Amino acid sequence: MEAAVRFVTIDDAGKAHDGWTSEALDALPPLDIAFGNSDGFYSPAVREFMTGILKSPSLDWFQSAAAGIENPALVMIGQKARLYTTNHTQAEAMAEWALWQALDFLRNGPRHRALQAEGAWKRTKAREIRGSLWLVVGYGSIGQAVGRRVTALGGQVTGLRRSPGPAEGAARIVAPSELMTELPRADIVLLCPPHTPETENMAGADFFAAMAPEALFLNLGRGALVDEAALMAALDAGRPAFAALDVTRTEPLPEGSPLWRHPKISITPHDSSETPGTVAGADETFLANLAHYLSGKPMKHLVEPVAFLAG
Amino acid sequence: MEAAVRFVTIDDAGKAHDGWTSEALDALPPLDIAFGNSDGFYSPAVREFMTGILKSPSLDWFQSAAAGIENPALVMIGQKARLYTTNHTQAEAMAEWALWQALDFLRNGPRHRALQAEGAWKRTKAREIRGSLWLVVGYGSIGQAVGRRVTALGGQVTGLRRSPGPAEGAARIVAPSELMTELPRADIVLLCPPHTPETENMAGADFFAAMAPEALFLNLGRGALVDEAALMAALDAGRPAFAALDVTRTEPLPEGSPLWRHPKISITPHDSSETPGTVAGADETFLANLAHYLSGKPMKHLVEPVAFLAG
Repeated sequence: MEAAVRFVTIDDAGKAHDGWTSEALDALPPLDIAFGNSDGFYSPAVREFMTGILKSPSLDWFQSAAAGIENPALVMIGQKARLYTTNHTQAEAMAEWALWQALDFLRNGPRHRALQAEGAWKRTKAREIRGSLWLVVGYGSIGQAVGRRVTALGGQVTGLRRSPGPAEGAARIVAPSELMTELPRADIVLLCPPHTPETENMAGADFFAAMAPEALFLNLGRGALVDEAALMAALDAGRPAFAALDVTRTEPLPEGSPLWRHPKISITPHDSSETPGTVAGADETFLANLAHYLSGKPMKHLVEPVAFLAG
Repeated sequence: MEAAVRFVTIDDAGKAHDGWTSEALDALPPLDIAFGNSDGFYSPAVREFMTGILKSPSLDWFQSAAAGIENPALVMIGQKARLYTTNHTQAEAMAEWALWQALDFLRNGPRHRALQAEGAWKRTKAREIRGSLWLVVGYGSIGQAVGRRVTALGGQVTGLRRSPGPAEGAARIVAPSELMTELPRADIVLLCPPHTPETENMAGADFFAAMAPEALFLNLGRGALVDEAALMAALDAGRPAFAALDVTRTEPLPEGSPLWRHPKISITPHDSSETPGTVAGADETFLANLAHYLSGKPMKHLVEPVAFLAG
């Protein structure tokens, strides 16, 4: 099998190398298959990488390390490649981000750190994930990875999505029309639906006003799902209690953004999936799909070509 | 059954009340049964509460909300009561403390917060509980509550204790003699054995020198298990990477203690078990044991009287 596949890599300077010998090449040769891993997506040479893929006259298959397909360069690749497959293993790392933020909120992390800075020994009542109710808006691969964990820890999960249940990790699946009924009940509301015209700005003033005052709002989806001014006004008004955002409307978030300084907002720079486990997971997805590709079996996470024409 | 039991409560001012009518009483009457819940243990009237129990001439049964029995007042009660039972439901809340501290470490919580304070959007590689190896030193009720959770999240748990395995939540059970062999392998080392002459100061310079440089040290046991000067020296030398302590040798920890200001130490004021779930769990333990007591069935978590004579 090795002999049948010639492979090339691209380094951070945009230089192509023979994958077997590491010998530098004059130029990136035309590609039949390309694997866009996160090293590639976050490389300083991402432009050369994407351009090289787009220039290949007969790109047959593109495996993306990402779950989303709305990035303009990925849309162009999707329009060009005969086969386009996504990867969803980053959901595992992202689910741990959700647990981290939930525990830091339920355990009064900010208050404990402030007391430590003062050298003040003051016991604080905490809450538990055990017995907590989570509403996961957009119950796909991320939602399920969260749901499995929260359920294992003794919490209860309601998944909100278009297709009816049952679904792994959720005690109940509810339809999008139930959103406003479900919001007030949840201790933790996690947003992770795909970004579409219908979900854009879905978390606005009405959404936050429907949440419980002691609840936590988490966003692992896209910044454009949230009206950030409405979120800050809602936090200032005391409902919900706190928000943790891995994504913002403008990324990178400008240094002067008031989101950074808001005392009830925790921000991470869209790095919830950045773990060695995610890199390994994407490699495994590619290698499993490569075996299927070479042997003519159906591939996993194949995207319908029509998905790239909608935008 | 209600008619057969007369019960009294004690308020934060040390005043006794009839439990059914809330009527104030002149004094605490002699007690047959006493339930020391955490409200009592942390009340400003804890002294009156304990004294009232110790003065009762024929104390038949004491139910403690605590798991430990080394507190001097509890030892005296244990020497007096015919039956003494402990409670282990606080292990659930304590296990969530361990997950919280582990995730904040693996996710680079301190670095993320420093970057947020600067308004700097810099992605940081994190690690996951999934795939991590935990060494739990003292694999009792707390260890098992941690082990069940870590295993459910895809981590691997080695429990160290005297009695051989298997045990719930642990992939392996090893003997105390294996400690120095097991320490270097673990990503996270959790200390929660009982405090005995053998375990006192067990985590000293040799212990820390055997840990991996990128590992986390957690203490949910007792402050006296740890040589705190050796811990700070070890952190300064870069091995282990970080420590989170819910217990310290002197409690409350004095404002001037260098532990508070150490940049690689997270301190919580012995409040890892302080959740509504813990209060409810202790009540459930008491009520279940009360039903057993009244019907003459064997009670749960009964302590052998000899345990109170050793000290």
